[in-house]
Amino acid sequence: MTKFDESIDKTLITDQNKGLQYKFFQLRNNKAFEIFVIAVIVLSALMIGAKTYPIPSGLMTIIHFFDLSITVIFLIEIIIRFIGEPNKKRFFNNFWNVFDTLIVVVSLIPIEDSEMAILGRLVRIFRVLRMISIIPELRLLINSLVKALPQLGYVMLLMFIIFYIYAAIGSTFFAKINPELWGDITISLLTLFRVMTFEDWTDVMYETMTVYPLSWSFYLTFIFFTAFAFLNMVIGIVVNVLEDERNKAAQLQSEEDGEPNLKEIKAELAELKQLLIAQQKADKQ
Amino acid sequence: MTKFDESIDKTLITDQNKGLQYKFFQLRNNKAFEIFVIAVIVLSALMIGAKTYPIPSGLMTIIHFFDLSITVIFLIEIIIRFIGEPNKKRFFNNFWNVFDTLIVVVSLIPIEDSEMAILGRLVRIFRVLRMISIIPELRLLINSLVKALPQLGYVMLLMFIIFYIYAAIGSTFFAKINPELWGDITISLLTLFRVMTFEDWTDVMYETMTVYPLSWSFYLTFIFFTAFAFLNMVIGIVVNVLEDERNKAAQLQSEEDGEPNLKEIKAELAELKQLLIAQQKADKQ
Amino acid sequence: MTKFDESIDKTLITDQNKGLQYKFFQLRNNKAFEIFVIAVIVLSALMIGAKTYPIPSGLMTIIHFFDLSITVIFLIEIIIRFIGEPNKKRFFNNFWNVFDTLIVVVSLIPIEDSEMAILGRLVRIFRVLRMISIIPELRLLINSLVKALPQLGYVMLLMFIIFYIYAAIGSTFFAKINPELWGDITISLLTLFRVMTFEDWTDVMYETMTVYPLSWSFYLTFIFFTAFAFLNMVIGIVVNVLEDERNKAAQLQSEEDGEPNLKEIKAELAELKQLLIAQQKADKQ
Amino acid sequence: MTKFDESIDKTLITDQNKGLQYKFFQLRNNKAFEIFVIAVIVLSALMIGAKTYPIPSGLMTIIHFFDLSITVIFLIEIIIRFIGEPNKKRFFNNFWNVFDTLIVVVSLIPIEDSEMAILGRLVRIFRVLRMISIIPELRLLINSLVKALPQLGYVMLLMFIIFYIYAAIGSTFFAKINPELWGDITISLLTLFRVMTFEDWTDVMYETMTVYPLSWSFYLTFIFFTAFAFLNMVIGIVVNVLEDERNKAAQLQSEEDGEPNLKEIKAELAELKQLLIAQQKADKQ
Repeated sequence: MTKFDESIDKTLITDQNKGLQYKFFQLRNNKAFEIFVIAVIVLSALMIGAKTYPIPSGLMTIIHFFDLSITVIFLIEIIIRFIGEPNKKRFFNNFWNVFDTLIVVVSLIPIEDSEMAILGRLVRIFRVLRMISIIPELRLLINSLVKALPQLGYVMLLMFIIFYIYAAIGSTFFAKINPELWGDITISLLTLFRVMTFEDWTDVMYETMTVYPLSWSFYLTFIFFTAFAFLNMVIGIVVNVLEDERNKAAQLQSEEDGEPNLKEIKAELAELKQLLIAQQKADKQ
Repeated sequence: MTKFDESIDKTLITDQNKGLQYKFFQLRNNKAFEIFVIAVIVLSALMIGAKTYPIPSGLMTIIHFFDLSITVIFLIEIIIRFIGEPNKKRFFNNFWNVFDTLIVVVSLIPIEDSEMAILGRLVRIFRVLRMISIIPELRLLINSLVKALPQLGYVMLLMFIIFYIYAAIGSTFFAKINPELWGDITISLLTLFRVMTFEDWTDVMYETMTVYPLSWSFYLTFIFFTAFAFLNMVIGIVVNVLEDERNKAAQLQSEEDGEPNLKEIKAELAELKQLLIAQQKADKQ
Repeated sequence: MTKFDESIDKTLITDQNKGLQYKFFQLRNNKAFEIFVIAVIVLSALMIGAKTYPIPSGLMTIIHFFDLSITVIFLIEIIIRFIGEPNKKRFFNNFWNVFDTLIVVVSLIPIEDSEMAILGRLVRIFRVLRMISIIPELRLLINSLVKALPQLGYVMLLMFIIFYIYAAIGSTFFAKINPELWGDITISLLTLFRVMTFEDWTDVMYETMTVYPLSWSFYLTFIFFTAFAFLNMVIGIVVNVLEDERNKAAQLQSEEDGEPNLKEIKAELAELKQLLIAQQKADKQ
Repeated sequence: MTKFDESIDKTLITDQNKGLQYKFFQLRNNKAFEIFVIAVIVLSALMIGAKTYPIPSGLMTIIHFFDLSITVIFLIEIIIRFIGEPNKKRFFNNFWNVFDTLIVVVSLIPIEDSEMAILGRLVRIFRVLRMISIIPELRLLINSLVKALPQLGYVMLLMFIIFYIYAAIGSTFFAKINPELWGDITISLLTLFRVMTFEDWTDVMYETMTVYPLSWSFYLTFIFFTAFAFLNMVIGIVVNVLEDERNKAAQLQSEEDGEPNLKEIKAELAELKQLLIAQQKADKQ
């Protein structure tokens, strides 16, 4: 039993369900089946790589046959998964199931047109992403990355505002100096991204400094602002992740250890005091 | 009600205030009003971008009209905000209100002069910064960045001293080799910043190594010192942020949970002991 | 006594063992012996460096003699270690012992062939790695690095999938534009690694943008994905290391200090309550 | 009173000491005196910068006069500090005092020789470092950096071993391809440092790949190893700094708050139990 079938409502698998669905459900969760599917994906990936080399036409037909076989295997696999799913509605609520089905369905469409042929190749390339949908650890990783995204939203917006203002200023002043770098605002945004990655940024700067000798301040402040915003972002994520980990750890400990907290101990002390006072009263009588 | 009106003293809004001021106060805090203003800012930003492309003169007049409309809308918005403010003095104590007013007032000045025209364009570009003054989350982000700045002050000073000494040495020895890179101390400072970003730093080094074969030590020690100081700075911020977060979390927990601390428990124990001793004395009598 | 002999079962060193083995065991753990071996390794490293300079044939024979001496010293040292080892089986279970033996054995093979001569030089270079096997602190460092590797496994796999998909796309679209950068999937992988290090990545991008003007999105998304995955990896390690350190510190403190925990205190309180209740019952009788 | 006179044994300043020494001691710790010295250092730094520009000979004599004045002021300042020091021995135990004295003494030596003139200029440049010796916060920063250095020692050694092995391999195989980059082991070390900073590393790689097509593995493994070791180093420092901060915070809290620990509470409980048992015994009699 792999991790990703833990989410399946086991109460649904009652005796009357033990027909075709149950058999496919068992097959789906079979370790050998999983390894077989991973092997097919790896083969599919290798074939994508092979196609980038010049191939003799004899080999080409073999690759074509393999390609078709992989599509058929993926189709059968999806059908097995679907029939094996106890709750049919839930099947299409899962992003990865939808993704897998889409990849297979698009692969099935016969493409003649050369324009569409490239789309067909792209779809075959994206099959490699099925690796993520099939290996639970990779899915967990992607989920954690997606979870971190909204936190970054406002920092991204702030960074875009910084980029936009600098691009507008750059385009206003430097467009005549080098239209290829500062011609309009989209080109300027790309140039600024290049400056942020420090890629030949001095060449860009020295060029504008011949006309505006003080334009170095434009680049230096930009680098400071973006580096600072980026730093803030990274630290934000680290702090969040650490907090989450700590909370999880604390919860786990308190649940597993059954460790009493200070509140309980205070309650115990209060009880003891009550006992003592009651005793004293009894003694006095 | 958005976050940024929480700071307004609500006691000021009594029945007798319910005239024009109160109506504008309500308008100001209206979600639809906020979204409308954001939309105008985005439009203003798009127009700044549009101006960087070659525009037919027909479109130019439309853009000119839009530009004027945005200025008028911003003026009306500021007036609404000002009248809506219960405490007029507080209005100009807020940095963002002053910033907004300044941007609008400068936009209003009619500019003919070509020199000033560029200033006019710049002011229009800085209007995009109003995004920060209008979205509370972005203001919070900027505030946290500003708070971190003084902590970095001494590291910045240290880094500047390192830069200054290396620039002075570089200028003394290498000025004759390449005056464009090491001509005087300001150019040398810029060259060293370039070396710190690793941008074609080997070209700079190989050039001076033809005259001073040991000058690689100049660059390597500089990279080590600045990288080390930078590292120290980053770690300093991380530690500070983590400390702050921890303190906040600890405070929140103790406030919300009402969790007793060890001091209280010790006090309780002392009380119990007193009770016991008193009882023993009573027993002896 | 150095750290790395702590792992040796001291019970094995009984009186009857006090022959040659015990003497060698003592020699092996002698500080002076360790320093002598380190000195020989440093000498061996310096000679490797010296060989990269043009050397007069007279000096060459001296270096040749030194080389042989070092091989002999290493051989003797390994034999001393082996004889000195109380538990012979354990000797070859230690990775570093196997590594040391291999290096020495391969050094002994007389090489005439020019092809093999290079292999011989390589083996002599790898002798410097014996520094790690002899200094316990470096071994600890390497062990901690190796321990961190499996944690990174899945992130590495995810990153490789991202690289592979982008390489396949890049090779499909850009192969005709520049076969030297995008000719096949392996070259594309190398080009993408170059893009990730920001090394002249704009040159690569500008070239493809002449044919596909929107190809900047290919590079920007790639940089975002890899940077994000890398960030996740780094944070993952930091969190793990911090957790480990915290657990170790907590364990150490509780072990060394003998600090009582809340459970013990609760047990004490329960006992007190029992005493009080028993007393009250006795009083009532 | 500034921070750095806290270390002075105040018991030494008794009534009979209230002569010249005490007056100078007071002057030394005067805030105005400190600000004056900082101003002189800043002036000295500005003059170093000014000298890198072409200066008319009229100004040169003024600068020369200023230079002499600064030397004299520094000399007087050091004398005041020395006389003001209650414990003369301690004066030269302080690294910064020795540093200050050295700078001033070397400045006093009259230099005619052109070779020595450069040394004289260097000493004048290093005067800027007096900024660190005079501002306590900067001294604290430097101290914390120096404290972190020994921790990094072994990581540095490990990194040097990696560099040395790769330099030896690189020099063995690539020396004939490009002697300027791989000629001997020192040049190779510099080239590898360049590769680590990602500075035009692909140019270096593509050149060797024309002869050894698999040499990309040399560069990629080198980048992985050094990046990994560097990462380990950074994390090591972060963890250490965080640990230190936590320990300090914990110590401070327990000292300032007088917060009782669990041990004390356990002792209290044991006392209570003794009291109860004693009472019960008394009751039984």
